[in-house]
Amino acid sequence: MNVDGKRYRTIWLAEDGVTVEIIDQTKFPFAFETVQLRTMAQAAHAIRVMQVRGAPLIGATAAYGVALAMREDPSDISLLAACTVLLETRPTAVNLNWALDRCRRSLIKVPSQNRAEAAYALANEICDEDIAINLSIGMHGMALIAALAQTKRTGEPVNILTHCNAGWLATVDWGTATAPIYMAHDGGIPVHVWVDETRPRNQGAFLTAWELGHHGVPHTVIADNAGGHLMQHGEVDIVITGTDRTTATGDVCNKIGTYLKALAAKDNNVPFYVALPSPTIDFSLSDGVRDIPIEERNGDEVSWITGRTATGALETVQIVAEGSEVGNPAFDVTPAHLVTGLITERGVLDANRQAIAHAFPERVKKSA
Amino acid sequence: MNVDGKRYRTIWLAEDGVTVEIIDQTKFPFAFETVQLRTMAQAAHAIRVMQVRGAPLIGATAAYGVALAMREDPSDISLLAACTVLLETRPTAVNLNWALDRCRRSLIKVPSQNRAEAAYALANEICDEDIAINLSIGMHGMALIAALAQTKRTGEPVNILTHCNAGWLATVDWGTATAPIYMAHDGGIPVHVWVDETRPRNQGAFLTAWELGHHGVPHTVIADNAGGHLMQHGEVDIVITGTDRTTATGDVCNKIGTYLKALAAKDNNVPFYVALPSPTIDFSLSDGVRDIPIEERNGDEVSWITGRTATGALETVQIVAEGSEVGNPAFDVTPAHLVTGLITERGVLDANRQAIAHAFPERVKKSA
Repeated sequence: MNVDGKRYRTIWLAEDGVTVEIIDQTKFPFAFETVQLRTMAQAAHAIRVMQVRGAPLIGATAAYGVALAMREDPSDISLLAACTVLLETRPTAVNLNWALDRCRRSLIKVPSQNRAEAAYALANEICDEDIAINLSIGMHGMALIAALAQTKRTGEPVNILTHCNAGWLATVDWGTATAPIYMAHDGGIPVHVWVDETRPRNQGAFLTAWELGHHGVPHTVIADNAGGHLMQHGEVDIVITGTDRTTATGDVCNKIGTYLKALAAKDNNVPFYVALPSPTIDFSLSDGVRDIPIEERNGDEVSWITGRTATGALETVQIVAEGSEVGNPAFDVTPAHLVTGLITERGVLDANRQAIAHAFPERVKKSA
Repeated sequence: MNVDGKRYRTIWLAEDGVTVEIIDQTKFPFAFETVQLRTMAQAAHAIRVMQVRGAPLIGATAAYGVALAMREDPSDISLLAACTVLLETRPTAVNLNWALDRCRRSLIKVPSQNRAEAAYALANEICDEDIAINLSIGMHGMALIAALAQTKRTGEPVNILTHCNAGWLATVDWGTATAPIYMAHDGGIPVHVWVDETRPRNQGAFLTAWELGHHGVPHTVIADNAGGHLMQHGEVDIVITGTDRTTATGDVCNKIGTYLKALAAKDNNVPFYVALPSPTIDFSLSDGVRDIPIEERNGDEVSWITGRTATGALETVQIVAEGSEVGNPAFDVTPAHLVTGLITERGVLDANRQAIAHAFPERVKKSA
């Protein structure tokens, strides 16, 4: 998307056609810096230290990492070694495994003198596929926003609330929950986004606010506590969030606090939508609250926060009373009955087993 | 309550019987310091800069401020001037007005040579009344906790979730929402408190965590986003919050985010109780969501936070992307149908007009 008028993806090839460039996301929201990756080791480092984050972007970076490795040494050993090194950068990232598996299977069949070229082509393809999925999600979601715009007076914005960052910075471009928002905005539909701060890691205040602001989308950052009050007073027309994992029955696992917004939306008749690329549907699960294990992360994420002082320096400060225990569940599950619809690349689906199975029959068969 | 084994109130007389001592609450949670107030001007300053905060404690401090003024000069002019100066310290505090009105009306009838003594007696009485109310709330609320303890295995704690700070630091002693918790804990009932951080001002992480910790009550600080997930998984037995204002029909206005916890409690069959001294019931209101104006506070409370660096220095840092708009509604309203009961000094009431009117008939008549 745009950064102050200039078009960016989160990952792209430099003019030399081989160097990979990324945005250094560890510097957000206080600096915009790009980094050049010239070796597989640099790509692995970028994933490991979270210069890139978000499942689709991690997968794309890994694929380019393989391409950089093939440029250095296109041998079978080099290919397998690169996949092993890159896989270990973020052990729990499903997309990483998926992208590297695809690279290894595909490239091992290619003669070594053609491997570098094929690897770059494959990485480009993985990026383009991510964008195509997000554009489909965006198109289907934009239709929902457009319908709400019809109910507004001319010029009055559709108010969208989102939680965490399911934005373009987590993907190659467009994002998932944000794709409908960017397409509506770019298409001239007035929108305004309520951005949940999203404690404890503040991805809303740090990332979503940054990307909306630099693309020029009107938005307001709020404490996570505020959304219910805004819905009670008619200030929210639609909620759109992303998801990390959705069950075959439409239960949605997403950043902690999503469930509370879904409850408030239900209580105030505000439609609650979840945008997702279909690979995040887990057809082996049917009860999200019971079956999805929730990661308990380090309490320091709650107790300490990094921000910028008035003099511009970055500083990390403690914000919980000394000696108190801290709990930090990272995700929660929103039961399907609170979800108005799932915005997928194949259209907006009801959040139930029948509708999901009907839209993705090949996935159901595979998991059965 | 206890601070590391030593018993404190938030305000008390020094051994000389005239100097007023308070805890400097601006230093929380990173330092515990007391301040001596020897003049009315010092008392006014303490209220103005929020060394004391919380409606009951502000009222008590103002009453002692009048006493200090009477010690300096017990004339009518001095009495009226003291009341005027003290009233202007926090223009919107209802308890301040109430306490000063009571001091003025009562002391103006007392001969000037006896006024200082009478003023101290009245301030002591105001403090004792606050404590008596909180002890009644505590007793009625403790019975709820004790009943839950019966359903637990021996030694297994009752898990209580609270939001913001309705603790002893906001009152003269015991607090409102915390009174049942302290009484249960002191009485040997095992309790564990989930303390909502309470963004944006972090009164949970700064104040509630501090006071529970120093009294020795087991507790865990969590992001405001986490409560719903915990309730889904049976980790919360009861929610107890305070309130700033309750309607005649039982709608509860409290710190922003309370409504979201009430929704989650309802969805998971967790009892949701609100502890309140009856003076905070506003018998002129019958629809809280419609009628209670919600203060929109400065967005800097969301965008900036003060904490302690690893080297021990206090530092204020920006935690929202530069240039983003920020919204900061300070309170929300929880409709009565989400409230299991109101814990008042006259017992636990259903949150409806009949039950409230039955418990406080003299208030209904007065407002009719």
